[in-house]
Amino acid sequence: MLVLVGLGLYSPKDLSLRGLEAVKNADKVYAELYTSFISGGVEEISKTTKRKVIELSRSDVEEGAVKLLNEAKDGDVVLLVAGDPMVATTHTDLLLRARNEGISVSVIHSSSIISAASETGLQSYKFGKTTTLPYPEKGYKPTSPYDVVRENKVRGLHTLCLLDIKREQEKYMTVGEGINVLLDIAAEKKQDVFTKNTLCVGVARLGAEDTVIKAGKAEQLIKQDFGGPPHALIVPGKLHFTEEEALKLYSL
Amino acid sequence: MLVLVGLGLYSPKDLSLRGLEAVKNADKVYAELYTSFISGGVEEISKTTKRKVIELSRSDVEEGAVKLLNEAKDGDVVLLVAGDPMVATTHTDLLLRARNEGISVSVIHSSSIISAASETGLQSYKFGKTTTLPYPEKGYKPTSPYDVVRENKVRGLHTLCLLDIKREQEKYMTVGEGINVLLDIAAEKKQDVFTKNTLCVGVARLGAEDTVIKAGKAEQLIKQDFGGPPHALIVPGKLHFTEEEALKLYSL
Repeated sequence: MLVLVGLGLYSPKDLSLRGLEAVKNADKVYAELYTSFISGGVEEISKTTKRKVIELSRSDVEEGAVKLLNEAKDGDVVLLVAGDPMVATTHTDLLLRARNEGISVSVIHSSSIISAASETGLQSYKFGKTTTLPYPEKGYKPTSPYDVVRENKVRGLHTLCLLDIKREQEKYMTVGEGINVLLDIAAEKKQDVFTKNTLCVGVARLGAEDTVIKAGKAEQLIKQDFGGPPHALIVPGKLHFTEEEALKLYSL
Repeated sequence: MLVLVGLGLYSPKDLSLRGLEAVKNADKVYAELYTSFISGGVEEISKTTKRKVIELSRSDVEEGAVKLLNEAKDGDVVLLVAGDPMVATTHTDLLLRARNEGISVSVIHSSSIISAASETGLQSYKFGKTTTLPYPEKGYKPTSPYDVVRENKVRGLHTLCLLDIKREQEKYMTVGEGINVLLDIAAEKKQDVFTKNTLCVGVARLGAEDTVIKAGKAEQLIKQDFGGPPHALIVPGKLHFTEEEALKLYSL
């Protein structure tokens, strides 16, 4: 059996009681962390769960997690992932492949930025499609995140922008870098849906004890230091008055 | 201090380790469950956390949770709520009011249907705005959920429909009842965005050990028994081929 267990938002203490139980009962425990941030990393997970936890590399997972699936045929294998395990398409694909191979799979959910983003006071049901802002790379500079922001804005909806993480290079996109990615696309597209005057909300370390939430114009937020990872960026749509009230608490 | 602690998706075991710690350290522990379902209710929460847990009634909360806020001025008060505490607007409002009164508030997030819905294989980033289907009441029969489904569909996005819960009357809307709510609005509006042939995905008890996921036409799903609460309904938008593959696993 394969059990996908969510580590939650920030530290191994965001693991649920059910998740901890699954880890304790497993024959083998893996963690896949290369596109995410968990405070203290695999060492802290081992300490919290009192189990040996084997970290998977990017190639382990990209090569289809064959070893993992084979082991799940004969024993109980836990794969720990940051946030809720079902948010990343890699894991929905893995679940599908396992089920197609006749391996039973269960999922233990956990906290995720997708719902936690409303700690900003922006109401959950007013978020539209989510997008991810990637580090611009040679030959890969998608403009789709900008289109998502625009389409959501047209409908008055908020956009949660997840920010790229390349843990192997210790690169965690900051709120400021995220804003610059959007400004760059806007400049290229010659559109003004997102400008330096656009209201943005930056969040850092949701779920930690030192969460930071700040609201202000894009050009103001760029200059702010949000501290360590992970960060996320929200581009609000039309604000309800209680949302306005809430953002005042975090205003620069 | 007021600590809003998420109980997560299904049972008190979905509480995070951090959440449990907060409950153990609190001076007083309340639970607000009247619009939600937690398996075993307040008794099971008490058993799991080994703390006395006081259940708040609807009137306690609607009258502004004044007692709760007053107590949070002098001591550490935990308010337990189902799912992630920030998904319901009641709790973002409470957080705002507490902060405006100078009470420090912290949030301990947990698993939520908002992200867990992707256990169906439907990709998280392809969900649009979320909606809630209410039990039709005299003088209250909103058509907005239908509009949400339509607007999402136009953009190819999935719609998560949360289903009404009136725990005091032990009414938990089923997948079939939810589909009928949408069909009724469609009939009234004389529109065919949602018909008895529309592909739907019904889920029951996500996060439990006996989760049920079924995909099929609206008229087929109406006839299915999904078992006990809570249920949720998803109206998919345009399917990616991996999403199609996944839904085949759950097809009627």
